Amino acid sequence: MSNVITLLTDFGTRDSYVAQMKGVMLARASTVLTFVDISHEVPPQGIAYGARVLAEASVRFPPRTVHLAVVDPGVGTSRRIVAAKINDQVFVAPDNGLLGQLADEFPVQEAFELRNSQLWETNVSATFHGRDILAPVAVFLAEGGELRSVGPPVVQLERLPVWESQIFATNDGGVVARVRIDHFGNILTEGDSTCLGRLAHSTSLLIDLGSRAVEARIVSTYGQMPAGSLVALLGSQGKLEIAVVNGNAASSLNIAEGDELRFRYQ
Amino acid sequence: MSNVITLLTDFGTRDSYVAQMKGVMLARASTVLTFVDISHEVPPQGIAYGARVLAEASVRFPPRTVHLAVVDPGVGTSRRIVAAKINDQVFVAPDNGLLGQLADEFPVQEAFELRNSQLWETNVSATFHGRDILAPVAVFLAEGGELRSVGPPVVQLERLPVWESQIFATNDGGVVARVRIDHFGNILTEGDSTCLGRLAHSTSLLIDLGSRAVEARIVSTYGQMPAGSLVALLGSQGKLEIAVVNGNAASSLNIAEGDELRFRYQ
Amino acid sequence: MSNVITLLTDFGTRDSYVAQMKGVMLARASTVLTFVDISHEVPPQGIAYGARVLAEASVRFPPRTVHLAVVDPGVGTSRRIVAAKINDQVFVAPDNGLLGQLADEFPVQEAFELRNSQLWETNVSATFHGRDILAPVAVFLAEGGELRSVGPPVVQLERLPVWESQIFATNDGGVVARVRIDHFGNILTEGDSTCLGRLAHSTSLLIDLGSRAVEARIVSTYGQMPAGSLVALLGSQGKLEIAVVNGNAASSLNIAEGDELRFRYQ
Repeated sequence: MSNVITLLTDFGTRDSYVAQMKGVMLARASTVLTFVDISHEVPPQGIAYGARVLAEASVRFPPRTVHLAVVDPGVGTSRRIVAAKINDQVFVAPDNGLLGQLADEFPVQEAFELRNSQLWETNVSATFHGRDILAPVAVFLAEGGELRSVGPPVVQLERLPVWESQIFATNDGGVVARVRIDHFGNILTEGDSTCLGRLAHSTSLLIDLGSRAVEARIVSTYGQMPAGSLVALLGSQGKLEIAVVNGNAASSLNIAEGDELRFRYQ
Repeated sequence: MSNVITLLTDFGTRDSYVAQMKGVMLARASTVLTFVDISHEVPPQGIAYGARVLAEASVRFPPRTVHLAVVDPGVGTSRRIVAAKINDQVFVAPDNGLLGQLADEFPVQEAFELRNSQLWETNVSATFHGRDILAPVAVFLAEGGELRSVGPPVVQLERLPVWESQIFATNDGGVVARVRIDHFGNILTEGDSTCLGRLAHSTSLLIDLGSRAVEARIVSTYGQMPAGSLVALLGSQGKLEIAVVNGNAASSLNIAEGDELRFRYQ
Repeated sequence: MSNVITLLTDFGTRDSYVAQMKGVMLARASTVLTFVDISHEVPPQGIAYGARVLAEASVRFPPRTVHLAVVDPGVGTSRRIVAAKINDQVFVAPDNGLLGQLADEFPVQEAFELRNSQLWETNVSATFHGRDILAPVAVFLAEGGELRSVGPPVVQLERLPVWESQIFATNDGGVVARVRIDHFGNILTEGDSTCLGRLAHSTSLLIDLGSRAVEARIVSTYGQMPAGSLVALLGSQGKLEIAVVNGNAASSLNIAEGDELRFRYQ
């Protein structure tokens, strides 16, 4: 067995930033580390986006996995960095909402602020705490270090703004959701508790595009309808998803990351 | 030593989909796994493209490597998923042509359909069999599980459409080839059995661009001609390749992925 | 513990080239290898760019790490391939300047030319020495092979052209620097030995954009100024960096990779 450390950042993969963090961890490791890159294509400073990707990926990993997450526009300012135990896994991240989706979905078992600088690199830069503070602490925890060794306890983690993480019912019986777009152009919602039941009891979604409305047939998987069909279904994360079979729903409907989508079940 | 599992998908690297598969495998592993990403930038639903990249990468890996390949537009429909032994390596993939290039190049030693749901995740989604079915089976096989445990034998794997995988001679002594474009803008062909001999006995390629023809000097490596020269050579996959020295042949000739290229040896 | 091999190339991640190199190494390994991808997005043939990314990443890795670097426009011509020990780490690369930044920063402890073809793949292609020569030698060295076994000693490694690697003072007391742009649009300079002192004793940078001049306030970290502010600071590599807080300095100032930037401290 090896110690698993995942990485999620908004650093991209062109520069050396991700490798610098891995180098720091390997230089400190005394066991075999397995790195898994969750994503380095979080939009720059995209805390809410990163929070969701981190939450949906991390639940698949084994207990005691250490997740190192760095989307950190406040680097070098007074924002805290924390190490938290959530869902029996360990997260090391700035406390700026990046763990907010996880903290909404699971109880926070323990959380501590990174203050014990003996665990850090000797020279800490002002602009790259991912490398100089978070990476050394991540490898310390991955190799069995105590969570409480990193610093004092934290009572409450920062959450994401509510308007970014929820679906709202509108007065006229409709729904408005802030959406994410995946690599295929599928339109992802954060879902709501009623989505599962409503999908089961409806036959289509009527989507309001402002100048016109389009209908998305409710299906259980993409291939049930011919290529090019607009469909709605329960996606692989257990949330409502809108897709074009073998196509790109976001470009077909001209919907972009972070847009509000208005629709009703029918 | 560790157990090697490669991954090839059309998922991109922005979302959490690839990491979700790795998480599922790590959560089930009792040995050290080494993951190698072959490519996650197969064009969406690009089965023929994925089939070729998988074939050319996999031949470099050690025996018993497990290759997990997911380009799966038919997910959730009646298409089969298979585990096959080819060239002493193990492939887990939808049976939609994704193993077709390999099956053209090597005998299929064994193949079984994934039906034994005891090896899968407990809750199988309708749209992400890569995570819920293929990944658990891949780690089972990587750790020494028997291929025949996954389900009943399969007699014949699906092949790629012939028009996509071959070079044709034309009536007037020319050649027409469907091309791939690599990261450098080099124009790759699938070659034909006569390419090696013809390159050796010709001095150039005359390429028909419709409105005009251009000549590509036959060389053995890029640096033999000055920067900017159009050259033809036996590429690193043993197939005919057209390149611009230190430049981008595809953009110079206005040739795109999947285009038919017409040329003659001279 | 495992043997660490990093990879830096201009191959991109869409094709199978990187995976082919990893496959060759895994097929030859008798120990557990840990691969770390530094970057595969070095601009095609971008030797100077690759040299800098390699230098800044490699210093973070443990001693005895093997770095396999392939930016190789001269593949198949008479250019040498070398294995060099620098800063107690091992570098395998074409001798075309790709190790030039490292050789400027550290003494070259040992260097040998790759000539011992017994260490290589049996069939060496003319266009992919990364796979057929460098990868087999990298794994040989990672598993404890002697550096001097690879071939005869090399006296002097190739350096980068001076105009590409330095900052110059101008006659009127200003500075001109050739810049790199990172994923965030931050403008990176290679710095000079006076940069640290000058940043400490100045309050801003006056940047000459030709038609106009803009002022960048000197700060110690991004978050000290409001979003959208143009700032200058000592970056995480210990060099002068120009940024827009939560924004993209390169697009704001219309500066591109490789441009010369003129400015003065004030």
